[in-house]
Amino acid sequence: VTSGYDLITFVTDYGLEGGFVGSLHAVVDQIVADRSSSQVRIIDLDHFVPPQDVLLGALRMERLLAYTRAGVHVGVVDPGVGTSRRPVAVNAGGRVFVGPDNGLLAFAVDAAGGAEQAVLLERYLLPHRAVTFDGRDVFAPAAAHLACGMQLRELGSEIDPASLQRLERPVVHPLAGGGVEVRVVQVDGFGNVQFGAGPTVLSGLGDRAEITTAGGTLTVAVGSTFGDVAAGEAVLLVDSDACAALSVNQGRASELLGGLRPGDAVRLTEAPRAAGAR
Amino acid sequence: VTSGYDLITFVTDYGLEGGFVGSLHAVVDQIVADRSSSQVRIIDLDHFVPPQDVLLGALRMERLLAYTRAGVHVGVVDPGVGTSRRPVAVNAGGRVFVGPDNGLLAFAVDAAGGAEQAVLLERYLLPHRAVTFDGRDVFAPAAAHLACGMQLRELGSEIDPASLQRLERPVVHPLAGGGVEVRVVQVDGFGNVQFGAGPTVLSGLGDRAEITTAGGTLTVAVGSTFGDVAAGEAVLLVDSDACAALSVNQGRASELLGGLRPGDAVRLTEAPRAAGAR
Amino acid sequence: VTSGYDLITFVTDYGLEGGFVGSLHAVVDQIVADRSSSQVRIIDLDHFVPPQDVLLGALRMERLLAYTRAGVHVGVVDPGVGTSRRPVAVNAGGRVFVGPDNGLLAFAVDAAGGAEQAVLLERYLLPHRAVTFDGRDVFAPAAAHLACGMQLRELGSEIDPASLQRLERPVVHPLAGGGVEVRVVQVDGFGNVQFGAGPTVLSGLGDRAEITTAGGTLTVAVGSTFGDVAAGEAVLLVDSDACAALSVNQGRASELLGGLRPGDAVRLTEAPRAAGAR
Repeated sequence: VTSGYDLITFVTDYGLEGGFVGSLHAVVDQIVADRSSSQVRIIDLDHFVPPQDVLLGALRMERLLAYTRAGVHVGVVDPGVGTSRRPVAVNAGGRVFVGPDNGLLAFAVDAAGGAEQAVLLERYLLPHRAVTFDGRDVFAPAAAHLACGMQLRELGSEIDPASLQRLERPVVHPLAGGGVEVRVVQVDGFGNVQFGAGPTVLSGLGDRAEITTAGGTLTVAVGSTFGDVAAGEAVLLVDSDACAALSVNQGRASELLGGLRPGDAVRLTEAPRAAGAR
Repeated sequence: VTSGYDLITFVTDYGLEGGFVGSLHAVVDQIVADRSSSQVRIIDLDHFVPPQDVLLGALRMERLLAYTRAGVHVGVVDPGVGTSRRPVAVNAGGRVFVGPDNGLLAFAVDAAGGAEQAVLLERYLLPHRAVTFDGRDVFAPAAAHLACGMQLRELGSEIDPASLQRLERPVVHPLAGGGVEVRVVQVDGFGNVQFGAGPTVLSGLGDRAEITTAGGTLTVAVGSTFGDVAAGEAVLLVDSDACAALSVNQGRASELLGGLRPGDAVRLTEAPRAAGAR
Repeated sequence: VTSGYDLITFVTDYGLEGGFVGSLHAVVDQIVADRSSSQVRIIDLDHFVPPQDVLLGALRMERLLAYTRAGVHVGVVDPGVGTSRRPVAVNAGGRVFVGPDNGLLAFAVDAAGGAEQAVLLERYLLPHRAVTFDGRDVFAPAAAHLACGMQLRELGSEIDPASLQRLERPVVHPLAGGGVEVRVVQVDGFGNVQFGAGPTVLSGLGDRAEITTAGGTLTVAVGSTFGDVAAGEAVLLVDSDACAALSVNQGRASELLGGLRPGDAVRLTEAPRAAGAR
């Protein structure tokens, strides 16, 4: 049984242009002001998931929610809005998750201990619901009511938690001759390139590795921070999400090898030693 | 007579680079902390109105404020800052509007029921007012004082509400041979192209329409959501602002026809049926 | 002796992509919810300091903090994260500053009256501290604890305030034949170009000046606001940070002279009078 929360978090692909995020805040604020005498903290965890990239949104939710206390956690990356995909709310481990049932919530729900109860969002929608903006018209009002203490089952019909959409994690392919093939999953504002792989893929590479993409091959250091290499040089490291990543000290790794973007396949192999090297 | 509010909303063209928005929050926070024991909620409805586009700012304020409760509603899209245009506060329908008197507030004030009282912002400005940043030095302090219960007439001289600047809405031109000419008013972060026209312009178009711009002509489906067409295909629909809009399923409509941008003229006409079609 | 604050401000170069800022808020919120019954206001003063530009970050902190009340003021522009540069907290003039000891805090600390006490951030770090994200793992938790009333010395060893890193302000070079050479320090979202120089550099220029860069020479008006010149024309003025700046009325000054960017050297000289002019 859910009691009230005083925290709502958002992870979306809305960006900040067009006023989408402002609408979410306005809708939550209006409902909370009507129903509750206490404040609800709203945290915009991330509104810059790459557009309509459900997998990256799911990874982002999982990682960012590791730093939040329990609350109502809304995710909206929703290429199927207006179609038959289900809008849902899910109880898991003392948290509530709200969003489209397209796999976006799956990793975060699992990290919280797995879905205990789930409902379709059928009631307390905004009047005049638009076809293409469930964030504002369905998910934000549900989140606001849940934050004020509404029970899950007041929002709509219960559904089998086992029926919720699952999602595959990014795969690391071991290569026959040693090393791995991974995918780029994220490029941040500094140009750091994050791979869909944990720290262990770096442990077999020694202190210098080759990175091979469709754009060519580059030999880089394997280290632990930007400052391990000279300004302008590249380094493979474990980033702050505990993922393998490529960075350039005071530069943009995303511009290496003709450009690295989410989805690109990348091979990481141990660099051959120069003849005569120790 | 205005009593205190605990909500301040912002719609501006400041963007988030340069610290302009941070300044607004700092100024409001400092005044509220001095004058009041209660919290004021600040909602950044939209800081990405296209630079200096007063008409689009006015439309954005009107639409976003439809989702807020009554508060102090600040708008700043202000190409005339530092000239003789008047800084004003306006009471309308239990809300207070604050901004430049250049038409920006007009649609939102009308939607709230029309201006009942208006004043020039002459007092409670920040000391050392800069010439080019009335958002920080004039509008934010006025909003903070109003949120804490200050009456409109304490801020400056009353002016005739009928003297406030008006603004023309975007015009839909019917075409002689059927269909309409409209203007692009907004492109959002997904590349969706919004027209300055309501849902009715789509009702005469049947299920396929031709879109003609300076860049060429394209035949597209008329539908209700992205998912009505295959990935990469375009569809005319009614968007979440209840405006006619052009979208591409999992793509960017703004890149069609050589690029669609705010201000572009666009003709929407019924697509001719192929010979022998039903 | 520091007591509790209910304000935390941030100036960083994180941008909003990648969820870095969301992490900061989540960490602060979780600690504050654990330790305190009252709300802490978080103000995002600026997350768009140009990446790794410590000097501009320091200027931005100093300017923006002039508009805030006393609080815990976090700055993160940190190219040396993961190296031996020290993470610190500093008491100055009733405010607390938190960030890397690389000069970023220097101007703001001086403006507050100078450092009175300083400590290394050694305790209350997040468990599993990453190598490259001290904003989340070191500075945000320190700020949250300080906002809840923790004393500086509970966070780590005291260090000599005189040992804190200093920073040189941008230099204005007088030119032999009159006028000055300055540096571009900032381009904002409107394309306004701010120089590292105060209002006095404009006072010797008369009403028309020549601007010379590597890209060429341009003659512009010297005025006080955009509206002093026709649409599309450039004007030198004192901007809202009280710095000399170049703007274009309803246009982008940053696109003049082949492009103006932070770091560019710019000469400002009085324009020669036309033959026969008064």
